[in-house]
Amino acid sequence: MAGGSGTPGALLKLIRDGSATTRAELVDLTGLARSTVSQRVDSLLADRLLIEAGGAPSSGGRPPTLLEFNRNAGVVLAADLGATHSRLAVSDLVAAPLAAISGEKPIADGPEAVLSWVETEFARLLEEAQVSEERLLGVGIGLPGPVEFASGRAVSPPIMPGWDGYDVRSRLERRLGVPVLVDNDVNIMALGEWWAMDRPVDDFLYVKIGTGIGSGLILGGHLHRGADGAAGDIGHIQVGDPTVVCRCGNPGCLEASSGGAALARDLRAAGYDTEVTRDVVALVRAGNAEAIQAVAEAGRRIGAVLATIVNLLNPSEIVIGGDLADAGAELLARIREVVYRRSTALSTRQLSIRTSELGDDAGITGAAAMAIEHVLSPSGIRRLTRELA
Amino acid sequence: MAGGSGTPGALLKLIRDGSATTRAELVDLTGLARSTVSQRVDSLLADRLLIEAGGAPSSGGRPPTLLEFNRNAGVVLAADLGATHSRLAVSDLVAAPLAAISGEKPIADGPEAVLSWVETEFARLLEEAQVSEERLLGVGIGLPGPVEFASGRAVSPPIMPGWDGYDVRSRLERRLGVPVLVDNDVNIMALGEWWAMDRPVDDFLYVKIGTGIGSGLILGGHLHRGADGAAGDIGHIQVGDPTVVCRCGNPGCLEASSGGAALARDLRAAGYDTEVTRDVVALVRAGNAEAIQAVAEAGRRIGAVLATIVNLLNPSEIVIGGDLADAGAELLARIREVVYRRSTALSTRQLSIRTSELGDDAGITGAAAMAIEHVLSPSGIRRLTRELA
Repeated sequence: MAGGSGTPGALLKLIRDGSATTRAELVDLTGLARSTVSQRVDSLLADRLLIEAGGAPSSGGRPPTLLEFNRNAGVVLAADLGATHSRLAVSDLVAAPLAAISGEKPIADGPEAVLSWVETEFARLLEEAQVSEERLLGVGIGLPGPVEFASGRAVSPPIMPGWDGYDVRSRLERRLGVPVLVDNDVNIMALGEWWAMDRPVDDFLYVKIGTGIGSGLILGGHLHRGADGAAGDIGHIQVGDPTVVCRCGNPGCLEASSGGAALARDLRAAGYDTEVTRDVVALVRAGNAEAIQAVAEAGRRIGAVLATIVNLLNPSEIVIGGDLADAGAELLARIREVVYRRSTALSTRQLSIRTSELGDDAGITGAAAMAIEHVLSPSGIRRLTRELA
Repeated sequence: MAGGSGTPGALLKLIRDGSATTRAELVDLTGLARSTVSQRVDSLLADRLLIEAGGAPSSGGRPPTLLEFNRNAGVVLAADLGATHSRLAVSDLVAAPLAAISGEKPIADGPEAVLSWVETEFARLLEEAQVSEERLLGVGIGLPGPVEFASGRAVSPPIMPGWDGYDVRSRLERRLGVPVLVDNDVNIMALGEWWAMDRPVDDFLYVKIGTGIGSGLILGGHLHRGADGAAGDIGHIQVGDPTVVCRCGNPGCLEASSGGAALARDLRAAGYDTEVTRDVVALVRAGNAEAIQAVAEAGRRIGAVLATIVNLLNPSEIVIGGDLADAGAELLARIREVVYRRSTALSTRQLSIRTSELGDDAGITGAAAMAIEHVLSPSGIRRLTRELA
């Protein structure tokens, strides 16, 4: 119950999303008294979260002052940690990076080694962007495995030895002294893609097709994490050949037949030198018929799962990302074919299916966006303005 | 942007859901000034939405006055319209019926005939419960087909000739002069089951297995309707025998192999006198092995679809309702078997799967709950208190 339409945080949100640009519009939208709006806007101006930006056109009298969100009122730190490759950034409050790096740091080195490296690189980034530590408002971290979002801990992550139960959030909050949000990599990619939309839709599915297959769900305008933070785990839906055992130990998982690692394995068995997903993509781009056919079949199997999801959730947008999305038109075409054939007509009336706009930037954008949404939420603003005051 | 923690509606919600019972607790929970809370509570008391209910235990001084939601501050009308059988009620503001009827009225008679009948019966119910029309605050209607919730119109309903595009909401609002909410039958059943839970969970799936198969989704504490109001349509997920064509015209739909009509058809082909779902249930209850086996196979196929949904959404509860749910333990056991076998361990950690508690009452309870949630929402309260004032 931390804040609704009346709070400074809610007023800030109306300015940030473009719903209001003047005090008068805030009065209209919230139904608050003019004096209350003025008082709260003044406090946001004092905290430099809002700035005044000249006059608006007026039908007479003094033109009203335009209010603008100050994207430079602070910064957030963001990390998108992968199995071997990681990206880190310091970003302004619209998630645009002020400085960024990427580096090779195997997640399997364990939490102490990886997070010490992250802390060192974060300090370096703040220095590079010439940002003093007092301006740091929050941190967003993406991990390549399941995360219990409420506590910020990794939960039984299959490719992250030493991380199970590790309290990533407390460790980083102790070092950095600001709120730290931790989520899995696919959820932050979904947030990043959503954040980058010109007009964010309410119901949206992001599908990552890389070594494995996962998804992130925006439902009703919020990231849907489910009861255990396990939502979106479509890679282990059992649809495929039950004689193929997945790395998770179960038979017939979608990613065991249709993920990048599975395609590389199958093409290797056919005599090609495909070690990882990128090798499959290279073969497809070179016009290799067997590779194209393998990707097309994967697209059809993924499409069948997505058709089920479309009937169930009736989203208005599906975005396909991950390394295999770079394999070209064949994957997208086969996914679309099966989704439109197998879903009900009503549920696809508004549906668009496209590949990612952000590509490799989705994760780092989403990690920053997750931190920003938290610190600028109505409850975050209350904490923030107390501290700034 | 109609109202947040500061509004009278938000204060009422805190009392209704048991979060607060005194003015002091409202001050603590909202961060509002004591004088603001008092003023808004006074207005809710004046409108009779709250009542004072004696003193609370106190550590000294005058005991604080307990505030209670007045379930008799008004009534709602509710209708759960089925293909042939309908239920109507006038209910208090916790969805308990003050008077109720059920009747046979084929939906295929068309909107004019059916809604005229509904209006007549509504008037009779208000009379029977001795409720004056001024106390009517809202109306909730469930229809046995797709509904565009935002406009309150039926959309291409397969078993409702004459209803396509019919504006149910406007028609009834014109006659009754209060807000009218219209949704499909499975969504209101999901709402009803959710409303009846002692501790409502955030993520919940209601599955109706009757003549056909459908579902209603509560996600993040809200009914999820999707971009076109088509969410939850699991009966037409293509999983079954592709040579069996569904009544929707597509091959292999789940309900074409596993719904009550499909089982009745298959048992009829095997020489039994099964016309409708209830006949299948009767055979199962009589211990007929073929019928039990048919239901068990349906349970496994439904379970496979639910396993996919569990991996995707990670709900904490699944409730099975509809006529076929009365077929006994076999259906539930087979659904559970397949869901727990085929879903990931993390996604079933907290999952419970059970049959409906409300049974045939789910729809009418949910229709009333839908109307109540609307009229007592923060924006509904604003409208209401203006009118009452």
